[in-house]
Amino acid sequence: MKLPQGFVGAACVAGLKSTGALDLTLIENTGPTFFGTAVFTSNKVIAAPVIWSKQVVKDQIVRAVVLNSGGANACTGPQGFADTHATAELVGDLLEVSSGEVVVCSTGLIGELLPMTKIESGIRSIASELKSESLQECAQAIMTTDSVPKIAQASLGKVEVAGIAKGAGMLAPALATMLSVVMTDGLVGSNAAEIFAQVTDRTYNRIDSDGCTSTNDTVLFMASGASGQTLSDSELEDLLMKVCGSLAAQLIEDAEGSTKSVAITVNNAVSEKDAVEVGRACARNNLLKAAIFGGDPNWGRVLAAVGTADAHMDPLTIDVALNGVQVCSNSAPDADKSKVDFSNRLVEIVIDLKVGKASATVMTNDLSHDYVHENSAYST
Amino acid sequence: MKLPQGFVGAACVAGLKSTGALDLTLIENTGPTFFGTAVFTSNKVIAAPVIWSKQVVKDQIVRAVVLNSGGANACTGPQGFADTHATAELVGDLLEVSSGEVVVCSTGLIGELLPMTKIESGIRSIASELKSESLQECAQAIMTTDSVPKIAQASLGKVEVAGIAKGAGMLAPALATMLSVVMTDGLVGSNAAEIFAQVTDRTYNRIDSDGCTSTNDTVLFMASGASGQTLSDSELEDLLMKVCGSLAAQLIEDAEGSTKSVAITVNNAVSEKDAVEVGRACARNNLLKAAIFGGDPNWGRVLAAVGTADAHMDPLTIDVALNGVQVCSNSAPDADKSKVDFSNRLVEIVIDLKVGKASATVMTNDLSHDYVHENSAYST
Repeated sequence: MKLPQGFVGAACVAGLKSTGALDLTLIENTGPTFFGTAVFTSNKVIAAPVIWSKQVVKDQIVRAVVLNSGGANACTGPQGFADTHATAELVGDLLEVSSGEVVVCSTGLIGELLPMTKIESGIRSIASELKSESLQECAQAIMTTDSVPKIAQASLGKVEVAGIAKGAGMLAPALATMLSVVMTDGLVGSNAAEIFAQVTDRTYNRIDSDGCTSTNDTVLFMASGASGQTLSDSELEDLLMKVCGSLAAQLIEDAEGSTKSVAITVNNAVSEKDAVEVGRACARNNLLKAAIFGGDPNWGRVLAAVGTADAHMDPLTIDVALNGVQVCSNSAPDADKSKVDFSNRLVEIVIDLKVGKASATVMTNDLSHDYVHENSAYST
Repeated sequence: MKLPQGFVGAACVAGLKSTGALDLTLIENTGPTFFGTAVFTSNKVIAAPVIWSKQVVKDQIVRAVVLNSGGANACTGPQGFADTHATAELVGDLLEVSSGEVVVCSTGLIGELLPMTKIESGIRSIASELKSESLQECAQAIMTTDSVPKIAQASLGKVEVAGIAKGAGMLAPALATMLSVVMTDGLVGSNAAEIFAQVTDRTYNRIDSDGCTSTNDTVLFMASGASGQTLSDSELEDLLMKVCGSLAAQLIEDAEGSTKSVAITVNNAVSEKDAVEVGRACARNNLLKAAIFGGDPNWGRVLAAVGTADAHMDPLTIDVALNGVQVCSNSAPDADKSKVDFSNRLVEIVIDLKVGKASATVMTNDLSHDYVHENSAYST
């Protein structure tokens, strides 16, 4: 699969992963435009590459992004930041661009320095091999506990949009980080950064495995303009929603340690923000998520989770449907809960707050034995 | 074991639990004073007995409390509230006190009506058997998934304080509710309610298994004055800290599905509130708790959890010690993490924020296979 016009990339085995899998990738935007913007983790403790990349995207010019799996370079002190800086400098030298236009992303274990000799050697090897036909290998090189690479594409006329992603919040929880790079060859307008932030808020930010935000989450968007076709704001939004929406859904589907995908739809909230708050309160409730793992139609746990949300509600008039069965009306039992069918992977919870007109859907997973297993045996 | 002077109680098998264990208890304060105050769940969705009992304690006069396990009477609509009302009326009639002075507490599955015939029959049988020697059976009757009854006592001169408790936040997570009754025969002053609220905040509210607040949590304090001895505010505070602190510790020790008790101490925060916020952020972080279950000294997860707290911090200067080993200094690796010994049940995490002078300790448990197991197979 090809990158959109104007982009070239490559990946290699730098030797960061003990498995010998692809673990380093470099993508260059060859222009003619070099628009770049990003959304980063909301965690206060952020990794060296995030500290660096926040500065890079400030002027909305990004010439290249280098990403490694096999190490997060988080909580690594001044040496960790120096390593990120050296990485960007090397990429800048090899591609003959400013290091200040090179985004760096890392994912893996926190608290350990990266093996810089391996990273520098890897970058030197791929910088001379950059090619258009590299979407698949770039997606593979950022994988950690992901079982498949995540790729999404969309087009409109001559414009192509392509994206890759790994992890998600803590969806692939052992490695804790979501990284995503979205590229287009369309020409974008001055609202592109704002549009991308809004799309991120409605896609990646509505998948929530366990509420644990990582030190490294980075979602990058770049536009080369190489197609020569200008995208209106609404066209850009539609294309980004398709690509980012697809990547978010793929992340949920592949979440390790999960047996169920859970779609929590909150209707008739006072505001979309309130609807998301209520959805998130359910998505982060261990008791509810364990009940779903067990195929237990315990709607009381839905109400108990809703009641913890910082949102306007009338606690006595809430309705809950589980997979289409109206198990709770006006906060009291309704249909026989034994009628709820949990045989599909997807579990749909619909909560009607009846206090407004806003809606939102938050996606999560169940809390399973495997989640505990994978996260209790990671670094050692 | 005896109740403090002025209190009489009894418990019975009303038949609410399928196991045939004690499941209903009644405690009466025979005076001469009838002081009562309570702290309830912060959940917006609250059970019928909580709606009722909030009204009862408003005037700080409580003559009796009736508690049942085997059913939460939460999310049960108008009939559920009518059942709580009928329960208080019956107790009031039998004890010849106002129903408006009878606190009602329930714990068990949400969303199902209580078998009122069994409850009424049980109340009638125990109301005539109230006795001083009943602390143990009262503690047993409120147990749900608890493996042992929780009882604590303290004394000062002629004054006795005794308390019972079950569950904790979601520590005994299958049943989701913490109930506690604390009694004294001391004479208490006009600040007693405020003192009890503060003690609750520093004991029960600092044990946090999974952040899931229940619909039924109730912590009740009653004073009979029967000893004739007046307690100063500081004497009352000391006695309550002893009893409530002991009960909170017992709840952590007995938390089902846990293999480790975890004490998270946050030092040098700007405020005690900030210290508690940071401690709670760690206590609720599934990734950290799963690492502790696995005996994995993954201090990066401590920092990632700290970074999600709504508290003042400098992300680059945080220290972390695990069981006495300074694994992280200034947010970067320090001592060899393989030196951390996880062989004891207690795991001590000390976080130094270095931005102020306030401290707090929050207690939690690890996230284990058994937690998932118990909570995925509850109602069905």
